[in-house]
Amino acid sequence: MREPQQDRSRVTRRRLLEATIDCLAENGWAATTVGVVATRAGVSRGAAQHHFPTREDLITAALEYMFDTRMQMAREEAVDLPVGEGRTIAVVERLVDYYTGTLFKAALQVWTAAASDPALREWVLPLEDRFGRTAHRMAVDQLGVDGSDPVVRAAVQATLDLARGLGLADLLTDDSARRAEVVRQWASSLDAQLGARSR
Amino acid sequence: MREPQQDRSRVTRRRLLEATIDCLAENGWAATTVGVVATRAGVSRGAAQHHFPTREDLITAALEYMFDTRMQMAREEAVDLPVGEGRTIAVVERLVDYYTGTLFKAALQVWTAAASDPALREWVLPLEDRFGRTAHRMAVDQLGVDGSDPVVRAAVQATLDLARGLGLADLLTDDSARRAEVVRQWASSLDAQLGARSR
Repeated sequence: MREPQQDRSRVTRRRLLEATIDCLAENGWAATTVGVVATRAGVSRGAAQHHFPTREDLITAALEYMFDTRMQMAREEAVDLPVGEGRTIAVVERLVDYYTGTLFKAALQVWTAAASDPALREWVLPLEDRFGRTAHRMAVDQLGVDGSDPVVRAAVQATLDLARGLGLADLLTDDSARRAEVVRQWASSLDAQLGARSR
Repeated sequence: MREPQQDRSRVTRRRLLEATIDCLAENGWAATTVGVVATRAGVSRGAAQHHFPTREDLITAALEYMFDTRMQMAREEAVDLPVGEGRTIAVVERLVDYYTGTLFKAALQVWTAAASDPALREWVLPLEDRFGRTAHRMAVDQLGVDGSDPVVRAAVQATLDLARGLGLADLLTDDSARRAEVVRQWASSLDAQLGARSR
């Protein structure tokens, strides 16, 4: 009987984490409490608190779980990326897709709340640092470039900064039509820059 | 006796608007009420409410006043921009300075709150639209490029998106050292793109 119970526990946990991300993105930081998330996930408050005693436990676990899931997906999908021509734009498009998705909108609510809450800021900073480094490494790998070249590093960082700005521009309105042209042009410029560093 | 009273009234108004921006950037949307801002500005609550009957009046006026002041300063400072070589990087650096300043941090709090508040979203959207168009026109003017060329338009938009992303990266930590290199390289790439469109 242990196995099914462990499975149920894992399913409950995952539903809570997914509901947390949706709740943050839709309702913001202040409205995302363990009780609200439990209701949204169809889980009792007691069961939710068994998994996540505090709101910070829940929100940290949700951001980490969703980020790691996203990165795992990105690694698996990388086999479909075109080789040679078209690879740079495909990588940039996928990257920008991550930054305009629900996870980014959820993280933005937490980061913004942290700007005016020193205690929250302390536990958000290591997450931000880890997410930033992992995303950068992933982009370098997928582009197939030399991550030790400082010019390449800065070009990839600019791409992540651009993606973050595009994510912000998509917060209140659907910005996808305008964004497509910006992404297309930047990918072409990035491709020229990276090509010049003899990939 | 009318003149001095009008002056006092104008000073009071300006102090309230500046305190609103500081309060939003430091304490966030929820904590920025007419009462808190009045205290911060050293103005009586009654006087504050005389100028701004509602919190939305106060915050809209503050964002508009600070944005217009910033843009006016940018226009005045444009005479100091170098002509020819070095102009692109100087324009991009100033632009990024705006997006890493207090006004951006204040606006970010309002935009983020608007993501989970449909009524707030309705009055933020026209502001976001106006600010975006004005900043784009200003950047096109300062770069001295042809704003009717779609390639130029998208390159300038990407630069504003990058600046927004860099502003977000600067929210919780001082990101200025990393940013300097990203901006330098971006400006060099932008300069090549714009140069190729025969400025």
